[in-house]
Amino acid sequence: MSIITLTTDFGLKDHFVGSLKGKIITEHPDVQIIDISHNIDLFNISEASYIINAAYSSFPKGTVHLIGVDSERTFENKHIAMQWNDHYFICADNGILSILTQKIVPQKIVEINIHDRLPDNATDMDVFVKVACHLARGGVMNVIGRETDSIKEMSELQATVASNYNSINGSVVYIDHFGNCVTNISRKMIQETARGREFEVRFGTKTIKSIHQNYSDFKISEKFGLKDFEGEKLALFNEADFLEIAIYKSNPSTVGSATSLLGLKFRDRVSIIFKS
Amino acid sequence: MSIITLTTDFGLKDHFVGSLKGKIITEHPDVQIIDISHNIDLFNISEASYIINAAYSSFPKGTVHLIGVDSERTFENKHIAMQWNDHYFICADNGILSILTQKIVPQKIVEINIHDRLPDNATDMDVFVKVACHLARGGVMNVIGRETDSIKEMSELQATVASNYNSINGSVVYIDHFGNCVTNISRKMIQETARGREFEVRFGTKTIKSIHQNYSDFKISEKFGLKDFEGEKLALFNEADFLEIAIYKSNPSTVGSATSLLGLKFRDRVSIIFKS
Amino acid sequence: MSIITLTTDFGLKDHFVGSLKGKIITEHPDVQIIDISHNIDLFNISEASYIINAAYSSFPKGTVHLIGVDSERTFENKHIAMQWNDHYFICADNGILSILTQKIVPQKIVEINIHDRLPDNATDMDVFVKVACHLARGGVMNVIGRETDSIKEMSELQATVASNYNSINGSVVYIDHFGNCVTNISRKMIQETARGREFEVRFGTKTIKSIHQNYSDFKISEKFGLKDFEGEKLALFNEADFLEIAIYKSNPSTVGSATSLLGLKFRDRVSIIFKS
Repeated sequence: MSIITLTTDFGLKDHFVGSLKGKIITEHPDVQIIDISHNIDLFNISEASYIINAAYSSFPKGTVHLIGVDSERTFENKHIAMQWNDHYFICADNGILSILTQKIVPQKIVEINIHDRLPDNATDMDVFVKVACHLARGGVMNVIGRETDSIKEMSELQATVASNYNSINGSVVYIDHFGNCVTNISRKMIQETARGREFEVRFGTKTIKSIHQNYSDFKISEKFGLKDFEGEKLALFNEADFLEIAIYKSNPSTVGSATSLLGLKFRDRVSIIFKS
Repeated sequence: MSIITLTTDFGLKDHFVGSLKGKIITEHPDVQIIDISHNIDLFNISEASYIINAAYSSFPKGTVHLIGVDSERTFENKHIAMQWNDHYFICADNGILSILTQKIVPQKIVEINIHDRLPDNATDMDVFVKVACHLARGGVMNVIGRETDSIKEMSELQATVASNYNSINGSVVYIDHFGNCVTNISRKMIQETARGREFEVRFGTKTIKSIHQNYSDFKISEKFGLKDFEGEKLALFNEADFLEIAIYKSNPSTVGSATSLLGLKFRDRVSIIFKS
Repeated sequence: MSIITLTTDFGLKDHFVGSLKGKIITEHPDVQIIDISHNIDLFNISEASYIINAAYSSFPKGTVHLIGVDSERTFENKHIAMQWNDHYFICADNGILSILTQKIVPQKIVEINIHDRLPDNATDMDVFVKVACHLARGGVMNVIGRETDSIKEMSELQATVASNYNSINGSVVYIDHFGNCVTNISRKMIQETARGREFEVRFGTKTIKSIHQNYSDFKISEKFGLKDFEGEKLALFNEADFLEIAIYKSNPSTVGSATSLLGLKFRDRVSIIFKS
């Protein structure tokens, strides 16, 4: 079985997603197509990065991830394909993949060079479809591109450790459907910087004293106080192992969410302060 | 062929639905995954109940229905799997399934007990995926749970017959994409209570004299009056055989809908008054 | 492989789309179902026409396109199936398909007449599912309908050439996810009317001097001016070869789009003025 996932900012009203799938199954009838998201904010590379990083690991090795966000091919933004952690990613070289390459070195990167072999009116998506189907069929990368060893970095996505190792400064990079605020501070970064020290999470004027493993862990640790948990703020690691500021059983349209109740917005600073 | 349907409140922007599908096809590559809805209001068990009850019968016997709404496993809300009318349902025991069990006695219910066999960081969805794929492959229920004979009831979903049998009191349980107001009053309940008597539908200050089988039936019965039907209120039985208050060719964003034109809201009372 | 595409105004919250898919795979387990759109404005035939015309050509010959917009069967609006350009289309005869038949003569049209063979409570979608699966399995059209040679025309969708051949008058027929304004003026109509003459695009008080082949062509032709392209208005032919008024890197919710920045709305006039 071969799988192609789709992550785009095309929305679900227009024919764009349907057409993209039609082209894929025309080219490769046996492939399984799975939507990750088509509701990325328009041209929002940061959101696309977060989503693809959070999603890829749920798929089998060998899956091809096609990313249609800011995918126009320009002199600065080449089309690239990357083999990384045994998954394949196809996108424009606009920084989207640096969230992955900051963690693990890619196995191979090629600058796609099949454009001349396609009709004159071929679109960016036509190129991606050709490449995705080629890779999904097990084709080698050198057939569709020229090997390269670097891709664009997107520095705004990275949290930083203070030079005295007493704090980590990150920011909110994504606000999810439940209104939870996802940061760019990873569990690994906290563990490596903490070296056993205690710490707290700070944002705006607020402080959270501990980070939970998940919602159930939150409830267990708090339950002796016998209070009602709905509406309580908490910090926890999400499935992708990034720090998230959440409200227990939040609902943006009724009781409120982390972003509405705590005033946290996209790009707002969140810090980890270590105790000496 | 085996089929798993998905009904969640995860929304379509985040990676949650894509990740869920990735986990399912990793576990069971040949399964067919079909979305029922991912736009259930957050934690709204009543909506999820309505949707799953309305949708299941369009699928073949043996289909596995995974419900990811308020699915956190707690001491009160166990994870359960139910075989019912030759379909399988997987969810937290929070009352979602009582709309089904009020109609037909389940074939088997198990309290899922595979949690200890999964990694420590397994999520509620990881558990549901394991169980869904096991059942979709034809596995027996006792392998994934301990048999139990009762599930939680959700009384608010039930319409009631007056003690003198002269009325039925129900409420609006769902407002659909067309702005139609679906009630919890079933065709069967009306027929059994009517015993041949005539009746009318009342809500707020309004009365509707007859319930149509469908929209065409409405037009045929009214057509001798030669009026324009657009914007007319009507009562009819929907595909799931529940009473629905509708506006002919309604459109919430232009001409209006039952909920906007008639002032009917979620949870508002709708009654059937029988003539003696 | 057989493919059925779906284009409806059912929305993605209710169970309607899930139920439709369940019925299709119950009837034809091996078919591949692909969503084109379920977010067509309610009962908006014009939008549905635009979408299906823009999408069909991305699919292989033999694909069956089921259109669930204003699909109620009435005396005026029969249910029809059309073979056209080696694709199949199933819908109510309400004008939706005239955007196709204006370009190429259909191979065959039948008025669907299987309604009597279905249960009394069969819905319009039940009928379409039966027909779609029959055609997807390679069944002949005469089994499910009586041949007819005409379908309803929808004149509002057509642009017109002035009697002196000095202008074309069209209108905005669709506004896409990026806020781009799609017109009903085709590349072919302009080329055939121009006969080598120069022309410009006019709408409201605005003029655009040239029509680009795509976004990259726009940038190349303008780049010697070294200006920043974001927010620039441009005219180009979209993938379906219709004239589109766009804003470079538009975003309806931030920098604005053609519809917000230029004041262009659905149904607004757009003209081509030829120079003599």
